[in-house]
Amino acid sequence: MAAKPKYLTGDIPAINEFIDRFDVFLLDCDGVIWSGDHVFEGVVETLELLRSRGKKTVFVTNNSTKSRQEYLKKFTSLGIPSNEEEIFGSAYSSAIYISRILKLAPPKNKVFVIGEAGIEKELRSENITFIGGTDPAFRRDLTPEDTKGIADGSLLDPEVGCVLVGLDFHINYLKLSHALQYLRRGAVFLATNVDSTFPMSHSFFPGAGSMSRPLVYMTGQEPLALGKPSQAMMDAIEGKFQFDRERTCMVGDRLNTDIKFGIEGRLGGTLAVLTGVSKQSDWEAPDAVAIPAFYVDKLSDLGAAAE
Amino acid sequence: MAAKPKYLTGDIPAINEFIDRFDVFLLDCDGVIWSGDHVFEGVVETLELLRSRGKKTVFVTNNSTKSRQEYLKKFTSLGIPSNEEEIFGSAYSSAIYISRILKLAPPKNKVFVIGEAGIEKELRSENITFIGGTDPAFRRDLTPEDTKGIADGSLLDPEVGCVLVGLDFHINYLKLSHALQYLRRGAVFLATNVDSTFPMSHSFFPGAGSMSRPLVYMTGQEPLALGKPSQAMMDAIEGKFQFDRERTCMVGDRLNTDIKFGIEGRLGGTLAVLTGVSKQSDWEAPDAVAIPAFYVDKLSDLGAAAE
Repeated sequence: MAAKPKYLTGDIPAINEFIDRFDVFLLDCDGVIWSGDHVFEGVVETLELLRSRGKKTVFVTNNSTKSRQEYLKKFTSLGIPSNEEEIFGSAYSSAIYISRILKLAPPKNKVFVIGEAGIEKELRSENITFIGGTDPAFRRDLTPEDTKGIADGSLLDPEVGCVLVGLDFHINYLKLSHALQYLRRGAVFLATNVDSTFPMSHSFFPGAGSMSRPLVYMTGQEPLALGKPSQAMMDAIEGKFQFDRERTCMVGDRLNTDIKFGIEGRLGGTLAVLTGVSKQSDWEAPDAVAIPAFYVDKLSDLGAAAE
Repeated sequence: MAAKPKYLTGDIPAINEFIDRFDVFLLDCDGVIWSGDHVFEGVVETLELLRSRGKKTVFVTNNSTKSRQEYLKKFTSLGIPSNEEEIFGSAYSSAIYISRILKLAPPKNKVFVIGEAGIEKELRSENITFIGGTDPAFRRDLTPEDTKGIADGSLLDPEVGCVLVGLDFHINYLKLSHALQYLRRGAVFLATNVDSTFPMSHSFFPGAGSMSRPLVYMTGQEPLALGKPSQAMMDAIEGKFQFDRERTCMVGDRLNTDIKFGIEGRLGGTLAVLTGVSKQSDWEAPDAVAIPAFYVDKLSDLGAAAE
């Protein structure tokens, strides 16, 4: 049985003790820092407080459509000081995993991408060659010539050794047909993340995980996911930053992604915030998917330490 | 334990006895009548023999892209005498199910279609109103206006009470986004069939079942399938033809669709042919998914009865 999470809101000594226990804070964004395009009040000051005490902050997000550069633009436009080195998205996680852990070797070192420009930028940042993605040659209907060439292999690239699937607003039959054949020929199956939906305009739209389901169904194979709660993402973060897991805390609003991610990564702590998806009753339930070590009503409650 | 299937090839008295037991033969097409565009030798004569003995033949196929009319064209072009009334595809099965069993009532009687023209033709034949399908308005990228209008519901049709998913060579993010919202609003979730792949050019391409997987993943809900082995298809066949199940035999090449379909439908018999997917070793395996009552090497082996 996991212990009851410690409630920090309003308890200044406990907050100071909490902050002192860690050197690194891994922070989820949506539901923690902001909701859509609305930044939660006091969050900017709280981040500054953590940094002023020498803490490293890393923003860990499953969003696969944006590169770190594009994500930084969002931070800047919302008035949150940050830099590209602090941002870790699932597209970047995938690129790091492919280049530093998977280490695809020629002649099978190309990646077939289902996804948007953010994935392509991150793959390029790690010098990974790829096809598919936003290439207009794949943004069209299947022709009889495609059918023949995909079936007999003449239209397939023999160098593809990996299929990477992220959120693709231009998903189509042609891309799925290519991906299926590469997987049938033994390509490694990766997904930036397996979130079923993606929040937009206060509703839900098909997420990255939904893009890979047809391929899972056809091949009977699950992709290795590079987003939370997959530990492949934790390994990728560690492949980039060296950090002491014992002195690292994961902060998030979702038990099944963020908190689970921190616990399974054997981090020194996990902090749940109640500004997003999960509620206190979720971890108090007998079948709770994960129980945080600490919780606050909202991230800016940590700012009380400054008083 | 099911009995060992009776082998009919070359056994003329057994073949005659077999034929005499049934009034109706439900026949799968691919792997039984033809393979792709190649009609198996002797099949035309065998069909004629059955008909000359007063048997009703019905072609039961999971193909959802073709209407009965289009399927009939294939029969005619391959030199197989048939008529539209003998053909029962999963698109038609879906239309029959919606009109005669589901009986959608106003103001929620429209169907949102993911699929091709064959489905639309069959829905029209049962006077079912629908949106989506081959409409060019849905064959395009998602715009910011779509996102907003789908999220707030202003772009959704309040009359949609059912989402029907079949094989769609023009599957895209816009269609999936609409379908997701209709399902979240309580629409009945139907699939023409749940075959993961579709045979083309001697290879496999994404099938109708793969089109619905993103929606299953997002909603946690399985569609009711209107193709084999779903008994909803058997009910739809019965909704159209009145037949004595005890005097009906299902003929097919696949244990997990055709033979299972016949057994679960409590038909008087099932006949496996070895010209398609399943092999004798499949039903002899301890974990066999279904065991046929009879088998022949090929459908035309029944033709020996004429000698």
